[in-house]
Amino acid sequence: MAIGQQGAGGRIHVQRAAAVATVLLDHPGRMNAITVSMWRELAQAFAALSADADLRCIVVRGAGGHFAAGADIREFPQVRFDPEGAQAYHRQTIAPALQAIARCPHPVLAVIEGVCVGGGLEIASVCDLRLAANDARFGAPINRLGFPMAPDEMRGLLALAGRAVTLEILLEGRVFDAQEALSKGLLTRIVEVAELESEQAATVARLCAGAPQAARWNKHMATRLGAGKPPLTDAELQACFAYASGPDHQEGVRAFLEGRPPVFKGE
Amino acid sequence: MAIGQQGAGGRIHVQRAAAVATVLLDHPGRMNAITVSMWRELAQAFAALSADADLRCIVVRGAGGHFAAGADIREFPQVRFDPEGAQAYHRQTIAPALQAIARCPHPVLAVIEGVCVGGGLEIASVCDLRLAANDARFGAPINRLGFPMAPDEMRGLLALAGRAVTLEILLEGRVFDAQEALSKGLLTRIVEVAELESEQAATVARLCAGAPQAARWNKHMATRLGAGKPPLTDAELQACFAYASGPDHQEGVRAFLEGRPPVFKGE
Amino acid sequence: MAIGQQGAGGRIHVQRAAAVATVLLDHPGRMNAITVSMWRELAQAFAALSADADLRCIVVRGAGGHFAAGADIREFPQVRFDPEGAQAYHRQTIAPALQAIARCPHPVLAVIEGVCVGGGLEIASVCDLRLAANDARFGAPINRLGFPMAPDEMRGLLALAGRAVTLEILLEGRVFDAQEALSKGLLTRIVEVAELESEQAATVARLCAGAPQAARWNKHMATRLGAGKPPLTDAELQACFAYASGPDHQEGVRAFLEGRPPVFKGE
Repeated sequence: MAIGQQGAGGRIHVQRAAAVATVLLDHPGRMNAITVSMWRELAQAFAALSADADLRCIVVRGAGGHFAAGADIREFPQVRFDPEGAQAYHRQTIAPALQAIARCPHPVLAVIEGVCVGGGLEIASVCDLRLAANDARFGAPINRLGFPMAPDEMRGLLALAGRAVTLEILLEGRVFDAQEALSKGLLTRIVEVAELESEQAATVARLCAGAPQAARWNKHMATRLGAGKPPLTDAELQACFAYASGPDHQEGVRAFLEGRPPVFKGE
Repeated sequence: MAIGQQGAGGRIHVQRAAAVATVLLDHPGRMNAITVSMWRELAQAFAALSADADLRCIVVRGAGGHFAAGADIREFPQVRFDPEGAQAYHRQTIAPALQAIARCPHPVLAVIEGVCVGGGLEIASVCDLRLAANDARFGAPINRLGFPMAPDEMRGLLALAGRAVTLEILLEGRVFDAQEALSKGLLTRIVEVAELESEQAATVARLCAGAPQAARWNKHMATRLGAGKPPLTDAELQACFAYASGPDHQEGVRAFLEGRPPVFKGE
Repeated sequence: MAIGQQGAGGRIHVQRAAAVATVLLDHPGRMNAITVSMWRELAQAFAALSADADLRCIVVRGAGGHFAAGADIREFPQVRFDPEGAQAYHRQTIAPALQAIARCPHPVLAVIEGVCVGGGLEIASVCDLRLAANDARFGAPINRLGFPMAPDEMRGLLALAGRAVTLEILLEGRVFDAQEALSKGLLTRIVEVAELESEQAATVARLCAGAPQAARWNKHMATRLGAGKPPLTDAELQACFAYASGPDHQEGVRAFLEGRPPVFKGE
């Protein structure tokens, strides 16, 4: 399945294999620089995938050996060289795409090789897990482009890596390697390039081995319990435990006690 | 001193040596899997210890070479296979035990060897420091049991390790080693197995060498200044500095200026 | 330029070279222990530097091979041995100095060698980046001085390193090395002692290579989006994108597209 039109040469491809979807950033010859049409396709793709209750996992990758080089700067003089254009670009194009990923109920795994900078790093930051090849490169060198990171884009980076790392990245504008990205808390794990496919497969298998509703509740609750959020209401707390009479919970516990692998129906 | 009854074969033991108490999780042959009665004993133990103003430090350990394998799943079909039972189990049994540890005014050190998963990791997360042997193993593989982590249990993990690490642990359900747990921010430090006793003793000595009231204020204020909390009132700020005319503060400063170790009375 | 009087033998020196200012903590023979007059000079220095729109970067360093050994404890019996004195010292002397650094709109780089403990660590914590020589030493061993860290001082440490690291530092009172400080998230990076000057120069060059207004917006927004803060208003969001018609943004994008370095005017 491919979504939308060709845009300015870049596209978002969505592939589906059993309960796993792969969202592919693809802009040939441009290290998957993300065009306005690609940001829109990305938002549409995640809206559709989020609504698919049969899914257990989504992988986000780039085509051709790179994750993404960021927003496509060649479009900037046309689309965002005045305040109205910049607002439309960041608030109505990029922010909805990042939010669609961040709010996806299914586990989302970014698999990163090559360049992962600017908008590419922003996309990776709102995924749940980030697996990278050890030759990947990271950063957001937009201080040399003369503008700050937009608030709705900075949010994901702040939530993932904290204020000090976010400001280091933005104030210095360095591009750095995967080992440093891991030590800064930007990555879940790194592997040798040759092991990227097998580690992706193993991670997907682990994500799919769990009960789907449990994963969705964990994602929901990790957001809901964020600092500064209001206390849980009693109704919310009660809803947290409705699973107890459901088949997946009872299957999971019984399988454990019987020493066999569980079979979850996603209910 | 042993608290409560034998429960389902597991107990919480509390030992006291001078100003240091040790809380021992003990469920022989079950890697200290924590039963309903053990959760209750744990809450009672910490309530009593918190009220003891002569204490300077509490160590939490497991018996028999393990910290704890988590909640005792054998009890689940009996006690939490419907929403009411699950609520009672998590909100009225586990949450009060974790809260009793989290709110303890004295420094609390978890000393971890062997298995530290699920409820064991939840207990460790609400202690102040976590010292682990380098062969300890960590995780919360409950996605295969078919249910999400309860909100009051996830809070401690989120506060310690952040959203990304918490979700990685819950969505993948991997069990991982002490080095990885350290790099994820789950541990204060790790040592060789052979050095666990001596490092525990050294850490306890450091915790006991400080002024007791200063430690309690530091714990209180680190919580009070958490993100999203209301600003300190002027009355609260004034209370922060009441120590200045007290004997421990004056002893500490004078001992420093005289080049001798301070002797604190805990006032 | 030197600010204020000699104080109790210590001073804050401010040097300016092109768009870079250096704030030097200097208390000879006392490892730059910070006196009441130095805290006040520090607040004044940062107030003046913050108002200087031509600046692109501020470096904070200590003289004579150390960053700072903390507040000058020799003054304590005179100035803070009762609650009123302690309040005045912490709320009216130290807190304004730390706040003046934390609120500085320009990028602030702490360059750390030798001792960086207590008040020295507090100063470093509110800078944006922390570069350290690998033989620097860190900690806040005030538990042996008999008093807790003041709330406005703990804030910076909590924001930088989180609750667990902050409490470990305060409850144990250990002094630890630069590698451990890095792994705890207290530092941006460490280098060999022999490379400290060249890495400072390289870092300053990177900070100065970006558009000044972009850096200030990034700093402002990273604070504004902190956990528990109210949502951005539409007026705030609009203000975020006013840069788009400005010369630095357009220069940055055009320079990128033309493959040349940008020349920013700071507008």
